[in-house]
Amino acid sequence: MTSWANSGQRDLHLDLRAAITPGGRGTRELLITALRDAVRSGRLATGTTLPPSRTLATDLGVARNTVAEAYAELVAEGWLGSRQGAGTWVVDAAANPLPTRSRGTPVVATHNLMPGSPDVSAFPRAAWLTSARRALSAAPDEALRMGDPRGRVELREALSEYLGRVRGVRTSPETIVVCAGTRHAVEILAKALGGPIAVEAYGLFLFREAIAGVSVASTPIGVDEQGAIVADLDRTTASAALLTPAHHFPHGGHLHPTRRKAVVDWAQRTGGYVLEDDYDGEFRYDRQPVGAVQGLAPDCVVYLGSASKSLSPALRLGWMALPDSLVDRVLAAAGGQQFYVDALAQLTMADFISNGSYDKHIRRMRLVYRRRRDRLLEALRPFDVGISGLSAGLHLLLTLPAGAEPEAMRRAGEAGIALSGLGLLRHPDAGPDVPAGDGIVISFGTPSESAFAAAVDALCGVLDGLQH
Amino acid sequence: MTSWANSGQRDLHLDLRAAITPGGRGTRELLITALRDAVRSGRLATGTTLPPSRTLATDLGVARNTVAEAYAELVAEGWLGSRQGAGTWVVDAAANPLPTRSRGTPVVATHNLMPGSPDVSAFPRAAWLTSARRALSAAPDEALRMGDPRGRVELREALSEYLGRVRGVRTSPETIVVCAGTRHAVEILAKALGGPIAVEAYGLFLFREAIAGVSVASTPIGVDEQGAIVADLDRTTASAALLTPAHHFPHGGHLHPTRRKAVVDWAQRTGGYVLEDDYDGEFRYDRQPVGAVQGLAPDCVVYLGSASKSLSPALRLGWMALPDSLVDRVLAAAGGQQFYVDALAQLTMADFISNGSYDKHIRRMRLVYRRRRDRLLEALRPFDVGISGLSAGLHLLLTLPAGAEPEAMRRAGEAGIALSGLGLLRHPDAGPDVPAGDGIVISFGTPSESAFAAAVDALCGVLDGLQH
Repeated sequence: MTSWANSGQRDLHLDLRAAITPGGRGTRELLITALRDAVRSGRLATGTTLPPSRTLATDLGVARNTVAEAYAELVAEGWLGSRQGAGTWVVDAAANPLPTRSRGTPVVATHNLMPGSPDVSAFPRAAWLTSARRALSAAPDEALRMGDPRGRVELREALSEYLGRVRGVRTSPETIVVCAGTRHAVEILAKALGGPIAVEAYGLFLFREAIAGVSVASTPIGVDEQGAIVADLDRTTASAALLTPAHHFPHGGHLHPTRRKAVVDWAQRTGGYVLEDDYDGEFRYDRQPVGAVQGLAPDCVVYLGSASKSLSPALRLGWMALPDSLVDRVLAAAGGQQFYVDALAQLTMADFISNGSYDKHIRRMRLVYRRRRDRLLEALRPFDVGISGLSAGLHLLLTLPAGAEPEAMRRAGEAGIALSGLGLLRHPDAGPDVPAGDGIVISFGTPSESAFAAAVDALCGVLDGLQH
Repeated sequence: MTSWANSGQRDLHLDLRAAITPGGRGTRELLITALRDAVRSGRLATGTTLPPSRTLATDLGVARNTVAEAYAELVAEGWLGSRQGAGTWVVDAAANPLPTRSRGTPVVATHNLMPGSPDVSAFPRAAWLTSARRALSAAPDEALRMGDPRGRVELREALSEYLGRVRGVRTSPETIVVCAGTRHAVEILAKALGGPIAVEAYGLFLFREAIAGVSVASTPIGVDEQGAIVADLDRTTASAALLTPAHHFPHGGHLHPTRRKAVVDWAQRTGGYVLEDDYDGEFRYDRQPVGAVQGLAPDCVVYLGSASKSLSPALRLGWMALPDSLVDRVLAAAGGQQFYVDALAQLTMADFISNGSYDKHIRRMRLVYRRRRDRLLEALRPFDVGISGLSAGLHLLLTLPAGAEPEAMRRAGEAGIALSGLGLLRHPDAGPDVPAGDGIVISFGTPSESAFAAAVDALCGVLDGLQH
């Protein structure tokens, strides 16, 4: 026998061992037992406020005094606390019956140079909230129901204009699909296209995992200073090639114009698709910018972008600009409905782009990151390391003498620096034709402004130690 | 050769056919061609504002006049528009080179009685924005990085207190995992547990699809007026049973106390799990409330809840209270990191629960829905239909004479009413031992207050037509 009390401002669920009959005997004892059990079992957490006795009594259909007496008894027993004007609350849930294994606190590095995040301390909180307020105030009620599986039309329109203007993407609101970040996009595309999916021999292991997670194979193709060796695609039976043409991760080069044409030729010849991961395309520091490959061939390139590097990876907000012929397959693979991305966040992002805040934030951060890159280069000058990836993005690859990577990682760990080893980024199936190398990948974009200088000093300390 | 112009407040990407040399010849023509191509190809959408000529010139390293002349030429050709003080914009992208198949506008029913959504016109926009502001203002920077794969601790703490107090769930912040709604939870659990997964012979087809979508089998068990026939589980090899114990969808009954014990016994005996879909557990209208089965056996029941019925399905915000032993398996199946749910939405929800707004909204809506249920019952009184599901939730099942469902659906469609037929909810593998029935499922929770009366009238018109 259970009872649901809708009391005061707060609901309370009670397990009663027998039915309460208004005016009946034993009601007080039933209540005391149910409340004591709820506290003792840990179900009602320490600090939980109970409903006022008057409203609990009304809901249960008993006299107010009965509830007040039950509360008083439990206060006397030490389970509840009470103070005039402050109500009644749970003071002791000492006997937590649900021992859970502590999963510990993740170790936080003193110096965070780990690739994968921009400087989130610069997140434009005020402007984002302004957009959130405007978006939610203006949203029609239907925006709060499940809607178009491609995502909110307001966001697809804003993205279509923005990606066309800034990245040279040729798309339309009809063929953009919103998703929960690029990893989610890769997972959906692997499901939709099947395998194998060709990936760069060095690249983000998260995407290899996402592809494997939907039981699709990935196969590596080489990378050199001109970007992915797209001629390798002809040795595969790949359904698609996942590339980082504007800024290779981690080597930092961009795909040579000849190869841009070649990969499009491959796709057109074989019916394959290029999956263009444009993870930091907005951040270039020279006057030799690189538009999206998608602009060359919107029929066989899927453009992938997200807010993870431009704003914050915690937003879980990404987008695909698809060939028209893929839209339905992609939606089917995604589960047939818009199941993943908060519509309010989509409307907020649409407003944030449309009102110019997104451009403004990116332009501001481009200056910040460029300055950091320059400072980092200056600091690295004394050291005998190769540096690649200067002209764009938030990270650099430092190449090290053969065999030096494990020692560098060990010393970085001791110095409290989070960064990525190059070895982790190598595809496990990469053959001997893909030159192995030692190196570390560091993100000058990750720390806050105030933490950046100390992180650079710590890194230099590690490099200094390596060379002596 | 491409160029990236960082101009005014806005970025503009241009494809130039040759390098620009400051002071060099032909710069004006290069610019004109690049801009004309960008507009003609449809890449720059109608209405796109171009950077001011002064800043574009600075970024490209050319004379301002060169840019101004290029703009003027394209205004003369009719591609751009310009007005003193209003800048320069794209006026004509008539030759859109990306013909996309229109996917049409979804037909919107005049009367929305389709189950699956609460009255979203009552979404507490102001209170939600207040929570969003407070949450984002107070959030530490690390909240904007990828964090604990279980979700934000603030939300897990708020849910642990809330679910314990209101639904009798015995859990802790350590064992709650945040996800993108109950469908996402079912998908992750099917991946983690494998199959077959037993489901109620009548139930939400979305969940059957989600299970099938990860290549896991589902197998039906019977349902009668006491809820799921859990004895049927012994005829299966199910790894888990997905049930709606507090309020069966669509029949509306709750699982009989004997069966609650029996299903826990089954789980403990076989090492299986009960997946408890508590989709509308907060909305009960009588004094015979039903706590979560999870409270009986936290070690073998996974409790599933979401904000979809209490606030809005567009939030894509759900949660699982897991046995401690399942947490790591579930996180691995979910992709190993918190990949799906916006951290800002999680922080907003945590504040919304903690400050009492969630209780307040639910209590308000419980009164609204109860009043609607009473009005609907009154309106249905003249008709010869069976009604089940009176005591809880947002929907009713109207049972119809044998064979009447198709005709009822046809007439509802003609009357502009969206609702669900019972047939769609039957598991395709349900055998002859599961009685078939005709019926329609209607949600009195879906329409707005102002649309409710007309929707009931329209429904009565359909029923009237059926009986004459």
